Amino acid sequence: MGLTEFREHDPFAPIVYSYPGVTLLHEERSPFQEISVLGHPRFGKILTLDGVVQLTEWDEFFYHEMLVHPAMHVHADPKEVLIVGGGDGGSLREALKHSSVERVTIAEIDERVVEVSKQYLPTLNVGFSHPKARVVHTDGVKLVEGAAPIYDVIIIDSTDPVGPAEGLFASSFYQAAYKALKPNGILVAQTESLLFHPFIVRDVQQRLRGIFPIVDCYTQALATYAGNWWTFSIASKSPSLRRPQAGRRIKARYYSAQVHRKAFLTRTLYQRLLNGTLGW
Amino acid sequence: MGLTEFREHDPFAPIVYSYPGVTLLHEERSPFQEISVLGHPRFGKILTLDGVVQLTEWDEFFYHEMLVHPAMHVHADPKEVLIVGGGDGGSLREALKHSSVERVTIAEIDERVVEVSKQYLPTLNVGFSHPKARVVHTDGVKLVEGAAPIYDVIIIDSTDPVGPAEGLFASSFYQAAYKALKPNGILVAQTESLLFHPFIVRDVQQRLRGIFPIVDCYTQALATYAGNWWTFSIASKSPSLRRPQAGRRIKARYYSAQVHRKAFLTRTLYQRLLNGTLGW
Repeated sequence: MGLTEFREHDPFAPIVYSYPGVTLLHEERSPFQEISVLGHPRFGKILTLDGVVQLTEWDEFFYHEMLVHPAMHVHADPKEVLIVGGGDGGSLREALKHSSVERVTIAEIDERVVEVSKQYLPTLNVGFSHPKARVVHTDGVKLVEGAAPIYDVIIIDSTDPVGPAEGLFASSFYQAAYKALKPNGILVAQTESLLFHPFIVRDVQQRLRGIFPIVDCYTQALATYAGNWWTFSIASKSPSLRRPQAGRRIKARYYSAQVHRKAFLTRTLYQRLLNGTLGW
Repeated sequence: MGLTEFREHDPFAPIVYSYPGVTLLHEERSPFQEISVLGHPRFGKILTLDGVVQLTEWDEFFYHEMLVHPAMHVHADPKEVLIVGGGDGGSLREALKHSSVERVTIAEIDERVVEVSKQYLPTLNVGFSHPKARVVHTDGVKLVEGAAPIYDVIIIDSTDPVGPAEGLFASSFYQAAYKALKPNGILVAQTESLLFHPFIVRDVQQRLRGIFPIVDCYTQALATYAGNWWTFSIASKSPSLRRPQAGRRIKARYYSAQVHRKAFLTRTLYQRLLNGTLGW
């Protein structure tokens, strides 16, 4: 089994990314999607779902740190965390770095993603055996809809808004997430590229603003996601979002309080995003 | 003449970018390089040199605004500007927005790039006929080496550090640029991707720090440059670099004083860049 190149076919991106020099390490069709693991001389192992790169061992820390730590750092005392998606384990690894955390629940619909991570991604799967971690293989939408208001932080670590993840971008889901959060709760979601998908980012922001009193948007450049100027939409029931809590110390490769503050859109760009006047 | 796809072969990038849906509008071999203009339904016209995308009409404003305006905004009174490279006209267009400017000299070694821009890139070539603009087709290195100290701002708008542009990344060139600048002069250069080429960024920074008293680095995500988290290295004889002058008003699609401040690396990341401890 082998490949000399992998071409990423992201239905949302007008640029196709190819990775010359890859080999195919694993390929299967789960009940939900095509799962592949590729090997690359520079990027290490690459996990793809339905032909779209989810992570590379080389740069996944940018995505997972920036998805998890801003929300965790603005919450005063995050104990109960829910990750929707995130079957690779990267977000779990980051959430468990916070000493206040008592439990992290992962709702990953596709059991096979977790198993593939356990087999191929040793730097990502470190949290699965942690006593505070609980993995449930269920539809995240259903879990959130049926949940009591017990969560401090809900992290939506989803694929693109097609196929299994479509429901995770719906207003009704954000409504249910709001109810599943405690009074100081925070929700954060990956919400695609500011360059290629500003309409998706805007839709999510507007939906969240109809539900949460405080909503904001921050970004991170990600070389291996087509569109690459990646957005994270964050919403709060009460804590302010741009200033991390003082005195937290976690071990991160990239995230810091300064990175946190710089990552948020300027107020002007944020208004233009909401108004649909970004101009690209 | 036609193409249905264009593949960008950037010798510096481990990811190959393809643009499905392109048509070939123009192709020629100048004495210096292969020049092509492609048409794309989303990106508009795309200019490539030796198979590497230099700009798309859709997103070039991010690059040109971020290359030109930070330097122009920290200088108290930029009158005399030199652009090395930049034959497409984008940097010229931005520099001319500053009312203090009396002359912008473009040293573009390849006359054909300017002619191709004049023929195909109406939103970029607007400055060539401006009375303050002067285009000289000469080697930027030689021009700078022979220059009197007359420039307020020198902008290095180069291709990758191979082929015609190699000399624009050399210490001797930065030394000559220092001498060609007035006492408050500022130099800025595009210096490749923070993700894919941190070693290039570090080299440039170290070279500049051996010459200029104040040196810094800022970034912008650029979807159409492989590696995309693009760096700009900026060096000053005396003005501080992170705070733009108050009261400037230029018409920009993206740049603002807030964008300027956020674009600089955090102090910690900047130190890690210099120490070679970014970790990627």
